[in-house]
Amino acid sequence: MLSTMQDVPLTVTRILVHGTQVHGRSTVTTWTGGEPPLRRTFRETGTRAVRLANALRDELGVERGDRVATLMWNNVEHMEAYLAIPSMGAVLHTLNLRLPEDQLCWIVNHAADRVVLVNGTLLPLLAPLLPRLGTVEHLVVVGPGDLSLLEGARPAVHAYEELIADRPTGYDWPELDEREAAAMCYTSGTTGDPKGVVFSHRSVYLHSLQVVSAESMGLTNRDTSLPVVPMFHVNAWGVPHAAFMAGINLLLPDRFLQPAPLAEMIASERPTHAAAVPTIWQGLLGELTARPRDVSSLKQVTIGGSACPPALMKAFDEQLGVRLVHAWGMTETSPLGTIAHPPAGATGEEEWQYRVTQGRFPASVEARLIGPDGSQMPWDGRSAGELEVRGPWIAAAYYGGAGQEPLRPEDKFSPDGWLRTGDVGVISEDGFLTLTDRAKDVIKSGGEWISSVDLENHLMAHPDVAEAAVVAVPDERWGERPLATVVLREGATAGYPELRAFLAERVARWQVPERWAVVPAVPKTSVGKFDKKVIRKSYAEGELDVTRL
Amino acid sequence: MLSTMQDVPLTVTRILVHGTQVHGRSTVTTWTGGEPPLRRTFRETGTRAVRLANALRDELGVERGDRVATLMWNNVEHMEAYLAIPSMGAVLHTLNLRLPEDQLCWIVNHAADRVVLVNGTLLPLLAPLLPRLGTVEHLVVVGPGDLSLLEGARPAVHAYEELIADRPTGYDWPELDEREAAAMCYTSGTTGDPKGVVFSHRSVYLHSLQVVSAESMGLTNRDTSLPVVPMFHVNAWGVPHAAFMAGINLLLPDRFLQPAPLAEMIASERPTHAAAVPTIWQGLLGELTARPRDVSSLKQVTIGGSACPPALMKAFDEQLGVRLVHAWGMTETSPLGTIAHPPAGATGEEEWQYRVTQGRFPASVEARLIGPDGSQMPWDGRSAGELEVRGPWIAAAYYGGAGQEPLRPEDKFSPDGWLRTGDVGVISEDGFLTLTDRAKDVIKSGGEWISSVDLENHLMAHPDVAEAAVVAVPDERWGERPLATVVLREGATAGYPELRAFLAERVARWQVPERWAVVPAVPKTSVGKFDKKVIRKSYAEGELDVTRL
Repeated sequence: MLSTMQDVPLTVTRILVHGTQVHGRSTVTTWTGGEPPLRRTFRETGTRAVRLANALRDELGVERGDRVATLMWNNVEHMEAYLAIPSMGAVLHTLNLRLPEDQLCWIVNHAADRVVLVNGTLLPLLAPLLPRLGTVEHLVVVGPGDLSLLEGARPAVHAYEELIADRPTGYDWPELDEREAAAMCYTSGTTGDPKGVVFSHRSVYLHSLQVVSAESMGLTNRDTSLPVVPMFHVNAWGVPHAAFMAGINLLLPDRFLQPAPLAEMIASERPTHAAAVPTIWQGLLGELTARPRDVSSLKQVTIGGSACPPALMKAFDEQLGVRLVHAWGMTETSPLGTIAHPPAGATGEEEWQYRVTQGRFPASVEARLIGPDGSQMPWDGRSAGELEVRGPWIAAAYYGGAGQEPLRPEDKFSPDGWLRTGDVGVISEDGFLTLTDRAKDVIKSGGEWISSVDLENHLMAHPDVAEAAVVAVPDERWGERPLATVVLREGATAGYPELRAFLAERVARWQVPERWAVVPAVPKTSVGKFDKKVIRKSYAEGELDVTRL
Repeated sequence: MLSTMQDVPLTVTRILVHGTQVHGRSTVTTWTGGEPPLRRTFRETGTRAVRLANALRDELGVERGDRVATLMWNNVEHMEAYLAIPSMGAVLHTLNLRLPEDQLCWIVNHAADRVVLVNGTLLPLLAPLLPRLGTVEHLVVVGPGDLSLLEGARPAVHAYEELIADRPTGYDWPELDEREAAAMCYTSGTTGDPKGVVFSHRSVYLHSLQVVSAESMGLTNRDTSLPVVPMFHVNAWGVPHAAFMAGINLLLPDRFLQPAPLAEMIASERPTHAAAVPTIWQGLLGELTARPRDVSSLKQVTIGGSACPPALMKAFDEQLGVRLVHAWGMTETSPLGTIAHPPAGATGEEEWQYRVTQGRFPASVEARLIGPDGSQMPWDGRSAGELEVRGPWIAAAYYGGAGQEPLRPEDKFSPDGWLRTGDVGVISEDGFLTLTDRAKDVIKSGGEWISSVDLENHLMAHPDVAEAAVVAVPDERWGERPLATVVLREGATAGYPELRAFLAERVARWQVPERWAVVPAVPKTSVGKFDKKVIRKSYAEGELDVTRL
């Protein structure tokens, strides 16, 4: 039996029109680093977005489904692109300005971007790549920049303000199917080519509704949010579109991401919310310890991207009275997967036990743990498995390129369509996720899983251990067993038996490694993570001096 | 271009599974009026819902699309029905136990309900109607009741607890299309047959997401909500399904809706939120003034159904420290249409100006005002029009009956598919709706609209006027003009010229009535509203002693 409800699609267009009309007085403030900040109302911003859509269509010939890329900082013009491009039926492709040149070129060509909106300050990055970007027909330069860098460039060059000036302030928006592409974002995995996740109007809309729910970020038009997380990083975790949905004022840092200007903009603009990765908060804590500012306006801070050291969360609590709230997600999950608000009644140490988890799933993110034997693991806080998720804002595949079928690699998608996150963890009886390892690093020993991260954390708590990396090595009897490699501090006295005994007091007996090696340093990747591939290879090639206990 | 997102339907099934699993420790507490309250966790409630679904399918033969009715108070078993019936693909049909017998019978027959779940305490109401309910095959009696009333009844009779005992706690849920019917509710208009609104899984899910958003009710698992509004009244404004979506604890009053037990349950169970019509709060205020209790747990109270007298809101603020928040909606809007949280920075008198409006629209409710000449009116806080709305939880039609086409009466739905609310009002530049009249009562004078309610309110502020009703009467020059009928207080001295001058100081000159009549009383409908049809008829038939000024 069918309902009698209206069949109205969930679209970014609705978010644009609603924010402009109902929340026209909310503001987008862009930090300028010296000049007074640039402040525009949602009415002005939304109207400029409409002008941009007209310009893209009438002047640049952008059509439905075309990819329009941005190479931009977090600023109001980027917000205008966030609204205009999806609403006109084109696809907003945010480019990560920190990627290596080769990857950036590969991504632009794979997406077949026809237009790139670029901040003038980023021309030195983009200009040398232009000869390799075959599909780009138009460059739109936003803000001041050294245009001489573009002399002789093949794409047509437009100045943003001139392009949108005098365009109509109305647009006959197309009737979109909510499953059409609205935006795309490539993940830069450590192996293989980057992979494109294509968000739909439906997924952006539903995700925005979740972001503004009280159980997630819970923001309203009485809030001001500072997304330090870049707008090219999974749509700044959904904050910009959520802002236009609920009238949340935005404070955008542009390129001023260093601790000092961040402290300054918080003290002067008084945001109630901010979102960023742990490194940013670490830097800000240092800055505020050295040169105190008033950051008490921050009621809640969303922290994600990687696990936050509990010491950092505690320091923000105790020194600044600012609550860091852990969240977990990935490009493939739009990204909101979990958020760690403790349940009612949890206080003191119990509250902390919840706060350091990755958090709880919202209704739209269905989760299961797949254990070592491929079966579902119970939610008991102890049984580990790889996290798989399903839901309306979770990826089912990667973009295959124009005219190509979507890609569904087996290690990323289960046969019944769930996303394999590559993260291993446990879920408590009340739905809190704790990630313990990456699936590729977990040690599969005799049908059970041992978390390499868990062993490392315990080892690094020993006063003589500077660093420790644990990897799986082949074992005839158990399939795999852990190998512990440790970097000792200067003057360390502990030998292997003492370290082994130290571990045995802290983890189950069968998890304690038999194989040990002292190394001068743990090999690291370019972004500073332990490079376990290299350790495994050294072991396989007999380059490590391994002691068996 | 299509997205690469998963195509996962938005369903009540997901709400049921999520609430049971992730929020298993949240509770549903049912007031019992004397006995200790009945407390069940979401895990228990959700598991019992699964048992109920098995029983309905295996024992009663309920199939996909079948209508299963409830004639029940707000209690945990009703919550179980809310979850089980839609999840199994059947349609939850909540029956209004306050309707006249004839309407109740008409509705059950029109919906062709196959099963009725009925509270034992309501058997005296239902039993006499059974011979007229042709489609009902099964009665499921919930809780104690006088079963002798059902002797000789045609439908098979089942006891709820026996029926669901020993049923499986798993269910192979059907894969539903999110546009399928989940629930239905009939409106009892003052004219014509009742009209059935059929909610979809999609509309229930999206509406639940809106209810839990910070800009609407903003509830989480740290809240306890007391929906006094009946679960047969537009799904208790969406609170029960929202509760299972976000783990909101529920306090359900069962049949104990009088001021004394309500005060008692608030004081003892300490809910943080409640929802009810103004009459309930008026009664509660009286009770609390006479016999104070601690109701300070209430952080926010949603008030709707009809406009709330500002004096009542102020009394709750000042005497009890409890904030009543105005909301507007109707059965056709699921019902959340607007909610009146003042914008950032509004304080004092300005804040009150916002609080007494109907409130602001969420992104999923698109609004327009259609003026006297059929054109759209601006949002300037002054230009009145009939409110029309559009969105994914707004009705497009009424249920036509089994095998019948949906009904789309012209006075309820515009040619382009928007819902005509029948309410006339203005919208401010920042999206706040203020309703001024019902469309059928507004006076269409010379291409402008005059609000009858506005004139009445001004007149009733005059010390000599006990009551005033203003209606439209035909006028050769202006089309329509207002006729003011007034009931004077004993000892009143004011004559027509004085009343006219009093009005002229308060409204635009062209809105002041020329036609006046003193009447002994204003005719009223059965629910106590002014019966303007009767006044217009009296005027047309020359029964009123009208003075022209």
